[in-house]
Amino acid sequence: MAIEKKSYRSGPYADFIAEAVQVGNILYLSGQLGMDDEGNVADDLLAQVKQAYAGLKHVLAEFGATLDNVVDETFFVTDVEELMTNVEPIYAARQEAYGGLPEVAQTVIQIGALVDPRCKIEIKCIAHL
Amino acid sequence: MAIEKKSYRSGPYADFIAEAVQVGNILYLSGQLGMDDEGNVADDLLAQVKQAYAGLKHVLAEFGATLDNVVDETFFVTDVEELMTNVEPIYAARQEAYGGLPEVAQTVIQIGALVDPRCKIEIKCIAHL
Amino acid sequence: MAIEKKSYRSGPYADFIAEAVQVGNILYLSGQLGMDDEGNVADDLLAQVKQAYAGLKHVLAEFGATLDNVVDETFFVTDVEELMTNVEPIYAARQEAYGGLPEVAQTVIQIGALVDPRCKIEIKCIAHL
Repeated sequence: MAIEKKSYRSGPYADFIAEAVQVGNILYLSGQLGMDDEGNVADDLLAQVKQAYAGLKHVLAEFGATLDNVVDETFFVTDVEELMTNVEPIYAARQEAYGGLPEVAQTVIQIGALVDPRCKIEIKCIAHL
Repeated sequence: MAIEKKSYRSGPYADFIAEAVQVGNILYLSGQLGMDDEGNVADDLLAQVKQAYAGLKHVLAEFGATLDNVVDETFFVTDVEELMTNVEPIYAARQEAYGGLPEVAQTVIQIGALVDPRCKIEIKCIAHL
Repeated sequence: MAIEKKSYRSGPYADFIAEAVQVGNILYLSGQLGMDDEGNVADDLLAQVKQAYAGLKHVLAEFGATLDNVVDETFFVTDVEELMTNVEPIYAARQEAYGGLPEVAQTVIQIGALVDPRCKIEIKCIAHL
């Protein structure tokens, strides 16, 4: 029962994981860190959120999609209090990335750590094409 | 490649997130806390589980669905030992919410914290309609 | 709006959860621990990863599927530093389980604990049939 997949690899973990895999009209995206192509990570959570959305947009574009195609998001954060203290600017940045109020289910979880200790957030999405 | 979504907003986080988003016959639900509409949270994990399922039922009903439509569940708990110590009454409450043994994939993870420090559990589901 | 599901139960948690649930051509798998059928858990993370993939293969086979059908993976680990320190042998074992470079989206998160305190990893997958 072979299935047809389309995947995209990029960035520092390309030898290990795909950035996203499309099967039928569903696109499963790997958790996106707030890290740029050179591996830089800002100290600031807000800046990391903006960078993560920039990364997600880039991956989505490889499949002819935009953030409008995202239907489900999980925010894995290392400090939920930092997120909630800055909830207004962070969700304003999110809304700006989406170009409007996102029609997206969302779950927010404080986890212990991400693969890079500088990272404070990883955003995992599912999109439909 | 615009997709057609149906979403539902409610509760204290309505300005930030949708409670659930339907695309095609798949319904992605945001993680559901054991918090009532007035923002009250019981101290007890069992009571929080019951309240979370009541919340999930309410959201599902907005899409003409019930817990029978749920296919995948993740329990994010702040203390997995508390869950396992009370596994019998908690899973009995779950079974009662579902109205029988749930035909649902489930993953249980102890996380660091949820968006409200009173909350001990968040239940994230995917349903099919 | 009843949906048709096919599910599979096995192992020490069979009374509580299904190992996997199929709806249409999507298969949602419960998080898989590195625990064998007798409840044994190796001390070593690498051995637990190999056992988790053996468990996933077994569950997938119940639905006529293999790891080729997996499109999305989440690694929930109790110590991400241990994972990253051993990233080469662990991802080699993963590639061996898949029989090649996996075309799979992946998210890696350090969490607080799993349902059994001996367990260091739980792998949660979505597959398409």
